[in-house]
Amino acid sequence: MHRLMALAEVGAIDGGGCNRLALTDADRDGRDLVRSWMVDLGLDLTVDVVGNMIGTWNIADSAPVMTGSHIDTVRTGGKYDGNYGVLAGLEVIETLQNAGITPSRSLAVGVFTDEEGARFAPDMLGSLVYAGGMSVEQAHDVIAIDGARLGDELERIGYLGSVPCPGVTPHAFVELHIEQGPLLEVNGVRIGAVTGVQGISWQEVTIQGQSNHAGTTPMHLRRDPAYAAAALTVFVRELAARLGGHQVCTVGKIDLHPNLTNVVPSRAVLTLDVRNTDEAVLQRAEAEIESFCRSLAEREGVTITRKSLARFEPVIFDDRVVEMVERLATARGNTVQRMPSGAGHDAQMIARMCPSGMIFVPSHKGLSHNVAEHTDEADLIAGANVLLDVMCELAETNFGASS
Amino acid sequence: MHRLMALAEVGAIDGGGCNRLALTDADRDGRDLVRSWMVDLGLDLTVDVVGNMIGTWNIADSAPVMTGSHIDTVRTGGKYDGNYGVLAGLEVIETLQNAGITPSRSLAVGVFTDEEGARFAPDMLGSLVYAGGMSVEQAHDVIAIDGARLGDELERIGYLGSVPCPGVTPHAFVELHIEQGPLLEVNGVRIGAVTGVQGISWQEVTIQGQSNHAGTTPMHLRRDPAYAAAALTVFVRELAARLGGHQVCTVGKIDLHPNLTNVVPSRAVLTLDVRNTDEAVLQRAEAEIESFCRSLAEREGVTITRKSLARFEPVIFDDRVVEMVERLATARGNTVQRMPSGAGHDAQMIARMCPSGMIFVPSHKGLSHNVAEHTDEADLIAGANVLLDVMCELAETNFGASS
Repeated sequence: MHRLMALAEVGAIDGGGCNRLALTDADRDGRDLVRSWMVDLGLDLTVDVVGNMIGTWNIADSAPVMTGSHIDTVRTGGKYDGNYGVLAGLEVIETLQNAGITPSRSLAVGVFTDEEGARFAPDMLGSLVYAGGMSVEQAHDVIAIDGARLGDELERIGYLGSVPCPGVTPHAFVELHIEQGPLLEVNGVRIGAVTGVQGISWQEVTIQGQSNHAGTTPMHLRRDPAYAAAALTVFVRELAARLGGHQVCTVGKIDLHPNLTNVVPSRAVLTLDVRNTDEAVLQRAEAEIESFCRSLAEREGVTITRKSLARFEPVIFDDRVVEMVERLATARGNTVQRMPSGAGHDAQMIARMCPSGMIFVPSHKGLSHNVAEHTDEADLIAGANVLLDVMCELAETNFGASS
Repeated sequence: MHRLMALAEVGAIDGGGCNRLALTDADRDGRDLVRSWMVDLGLDLTVDVVGNMIGTWNIADSAPVMTGSHIDTVRTGGKYDGNYGVLAGLEVIETLQNAGITPSRSLAVGVFTDEEGARFAPDMLGSLVYAGGMSVEQAHDVIAIDGARLGDELERIGYLGSVPCPGVTPHAFVELHIEQGPLLEVNGVRIGAVTGVQGISWQEVTIQGQSNHAGTTPMHLRRDPAYAAAALTVFVRELAARLGGHQVCTVGKIDLHPNLTNVVPSRAVLTLDVRNTDEAVLQRAEAEIESFCRSLAEREGVTITRKSLARFEPVIFDDRVVEMVERLATARGNTVQRMPSGAGHDAQMIARMCPSGMIFVPSHKGLSHNVAEHTDEADLIAGANVLLDVMCELAETNFGASS
C-alpha cells in the first residue's frame, strides 16, 4: 500500500488519479521509482530494446516464474490499473525474502512498456514485442498522438535498453490486476480466476446519405444517415442479447455531419466495439453486422462502408493456471469466480510464450480509466496473497512439454 | 433575372452562393442596391423601426396589396431564397407600369429584416415585429451569435427607420418563394399553391447514463445513453410513418460524451425536429414522444430531460388566396399542386394581419441553404407571372370583413 500510494504521487492529477502517459517525463519518474525499489530488494534489473524492465530475484538457473504488468496510465488514469500488479510482485518477493523462503525457481517482475496505448498505438506494445509479436524496428517507428517517435522517446527518457526481444521465455506467467468492470462487486466475490481475454473487433462505419431540409423533405424521399446509424446501434444491442453469453456490443462514438437540428445529415460516422470470448461467435456477430449493413443500405438508399480499426482473437489462459488461481484463492478463504477479461492485458501477450493466467480483484462500481478508480485495501491485500501462493506453486510445478 | 444576378454579387461566396447575414455590411450593401431599384421605379420607400423596407407604388388611398420576402441569407446561402420574392415584386410593378396598367389598389413590396435568424434569433423577426408579434424593444435587444445588439446594428448600417411597428395592415399579402424542398421537382409540377406552414416543435433531449468500459461491462448492467438515443431516433422515424400525412420527424444532431470507441458514454444530447400542418397531430406526436421517453428511461435506467427549443403552431393560409394562386397558375398553362410549406416564411407572420398566401417554384434536388441552390429560369419566370396575376386579382377582390 505504501508503494502504491508513493507511485500514485508521480504524475498525480486532481481527483486522486494519475497522468503518466507512456514514455513521458512522468513515466520516466515512475520507472525510476520502481527501479529503486527493485534495487533495494536486490533484484537483477534488465531493460530491453523497447524499454520493458524486468527485475529478477535470481535464486535458480532455470526459467523464472514471472509476474508483472505496467505503470503507464491513460491521461486520466487511476492509482491501481497496472501499478497494482507490478508492486504486488515486489511485495511477494519481499515477503518471501523476509520469511526466509526460497522457491525452486527464480521469480521475476516485469514492467511492460506502453500497455495503455493511449500515447502510442497499439496497446500492450511492450509485451507484444517481448513475446515476438511485433518487430523492434516497427515498434521504434511508432508515432505518438503528439508526433514523437517511440524509439526517440525511449532514448530521451533513458529507457532504451540493450537486452534483445523477444525476451527470455518464463517458466510461467501470472498477472494480478483490478477487474476494471463491475462483475465481482455485483456478485459479491473477492477474487476472479481469469479464464482468458475476449476477442475484440473494432470497426468504423461511415454512412453516406443526402443532406436535406428537415422541414421540406418528406420522409419517403429521405436518405438519412442519422436514422441508419440509430438502426445499426439498436441492431447491435439486440444482437448482443441474442448471442448471449459474454457477447458485448458497444456504440461509443457517433459523429453526424453537419450536426444541426433542422438538417437531415449528409453523413454519420460511428464505431462498433464487439467482443466475445469465443472466436466463432465473434465471427458470427461480424457476419450478422455485415449482412444487416447491406440490407440497411439498400432499404434506406445510403452507402455504408466499414473499416476495421482493430481485431484480436480471444486468448484462452492455460487451464492449469486458472485452476491453480481458483484453488489457492479458495484455500485462503476467498470467494472466487471464473471469468473472462473484457479488457486487454499484458498476460495475453506473454500467454504466447508460456502457461499464463490472471488474478482479478474487484473494481468499485466497475470504474476504470478514471481518477475515481478504487479497490478496497482488503481486496488488494487478498489479491496479493493469492499472487504469492500462485507464484510459489508455479515455481514447484512441472508443465511438461510447455515448460 | 438581371436584378437577381446583380444582387447575388453582393456578398458572393465560392460556388455561386451568398453570405449576407442580417445587418452585416453585406446586408446593408444588398439593401442599398434594392433601395436604388425601388427609387428607380418611383416607389415610396419607408424604413420602419426594425429595418423592414417597404416600397409602395402609391396609386390609390386604400390599403395596398403587398408582396415581399427577405434578402438576408444564411452563411452559405444561395441566390434565390428570399431575393426571388422581393425582386419578382419589383418586376411585377415594372411590368404593369410599362404596360400602362393601373390596378385599383396600391402595390407594395416588403423587404423584411432577419428572416433567416442565422445571426439574430428568432427567424422571421422583421415580419413578426411588423405583425405585432414581438415588441420593438424586445427586438432591438436581441443579441447576435457574434455578440452584437440588433438595435445597434440597425443604426450602424443606417437602417434604423422611424416608421412604427406594427406596420400598415395590407389589403392582402402573397409571397413568391422557392420551395426549398424536392416535392415539385419529384412530381414534375411547376407551381405550388401553398396551403399553409407546418407547425414546428424543436426539442433538445439530454440522456444521462453511466459511463463504463465497453469490454468489461456486461450488457445487462449498462445504462447506455447512446443506445437510448438510437432507440428514440428509431422511434420518431416510426412515429412519422405511423402518423402519415405531412408528419416529419428528424434527428439532425447527436453529441455523445466522451464519444470514444471503447467507452459506454455517460451522456447523449440529441435534437428532435417534429413538424406537422395539423396542430392536433403535432400535439399527439409530442405526447407520444414524451411517453416513449418515460418508458425508455425506466427500461434503460437512464434519466431523460427534454427542453423546448422552439414551438410554432401551424399556419393556415386564406383559402381564397390559395384558390386564386391555384386557378391563375393553371390558367397560365402551369402544372400546379396544393402543398404545405415545410419551412417558415414571412408570409406566415403577415397572415396574422390580412388574407395571405404563397406561391412556390421548384428547387433543384430540393437543395436549400446551400450555394448550389438552383431553380430553372423558366420556372422563375413562370412564378413571377403567377405573382403578377395574383396581385392584380387581389387588388380587385373585396374580402369583406377581412379587408
